[in-house]
Amino acid sequence: MSEETKQRIIEAGAELIHKQGFNNTGLKDILKAADVPKGSFYFYFDNKEAFGVEVVNHYATHFAGVITPILSDESMAPLDKLKAIFSNFRGYFESQGFTRGCPVGNLAQEMSDLSPAFRERLQQALRGLDAAVRHPLREAQKAGELPGNLDTRATASFIISAWHGAIIRMKVVKTGEPLDNFYRFVFDTLLK
Amino acid sequence: MSEETKQRIIEAGAELIHKQGFNNTGLKDILKAADVPKGSFYFYFDNKEAFGVEVVNHYATHFAGVITPILSDESMAPLDKLKAIFSNFRGYFESQGFTRGCPVGNLAQEMSDLSPAFRERLQQALRGLDAAVRHPLREAQKAGELPGNLDTRATASFIISAWHGAIIRMKVVKTGEPLDNFYRFVFDTLLK
Repeated sequence: MSEETKQRIIEAGAELIHKQGFNNTGLKDILKAADVPKGSFYFYFDNKEAFGVEVVNHYATHFAGVITPILSDESMAPLDKLKAIFSNFRGYFESQGFTRGCPVGNLAQEMSDLSPAFRERLQQALRGLDAAVRHPLREAQKAGELPGNLDTRATASFIISAWHGAIIRMKVVKTGEPLDNFYRFVFDTLLK
Repeated sequence: MSEETKQRIIEAGAELIHKQGFNNTGLKDILKAADVPKGSFYFYFDNKEAFGVEVVNHYATHFAGVITPILSDESMAPLDKLKAIFSNFRGYFESQGFTRGCPVGNLAQEMSDLSPAFRERLQQALRGLDAAVRHPLREAQKAGELPGNLDTRATASFIISAWHGAIIRMKVVKTGEPLDNFYRFVFDTLLK
């Protein structure tokens, strides 16, 4: 029993859930992928739902690891940071043949109505994503690149939602076109 | 065996799938809700996947029934038609406590990577939704209410995607705020 084992179960489960959904992933699949017995799983997690909430934590931490260095890069103009974040995720999706989608968006769609614990954690995760988008919007505002009266909170929320929707369409059409369409509307229309 | 029985199975299954997801809905649940034996199900449907595709058809028909009368109403200005469509759906979501979401968006997220048959049917359904939005955009263009150089195809696709993403957020926060935020950005910024 170790933190390492717990982490291995989370990572193996997160991968399966990202590929095929939470309800479509059985506990047996997770145990097999992590190569642990059932007792080990229940040593770390009260049940599959509690495990799922830890998977959301795992993804929130992962996103922070991608986003924070970009937001902190003082050599980049504020809106270029935002472009870099979305380009980074687009690169990931392309590497996956435009499958999988956003793990937070997926679980928000699948689990919000079914589990209050998921819903609460996903709400936090959305707040984190909103904050990551709002940060460069406010910087751009201070730099005079965006109108001072732009509601950065509402704009960040709209951008993240439009991104989640574009990702759903990406999964259907299996090309990057919906992501490129999102990018054009956000950067050439909304943030002009 | 009758068309009526088939329709009853589809409607009962569609309701369950809308509430709790496709993979989370067992065949037994569907049979129980429709009050039919398993043999009856397999008389009409080759398997659960084929049944799911019929559920998408069912929703596409339902949406057409809501949207077509609005689009054909010659007493309304083009962009008012679009507003009426989204207000109509918002009213439905409010009546459901901002749960469930869009059945097409839900299944697009859940099933596109898992089933080519679903994916193909969902792609058609998205095309239908795009066309429903594009129609009033083109009318508005002809009436001089939108710029002649607006790419109505790309705009319709972006609007539907942004709507699907707003609905995901609605499921998480359980209020209409994300839908209202979508509405403001689309009608006060994008289509100005």
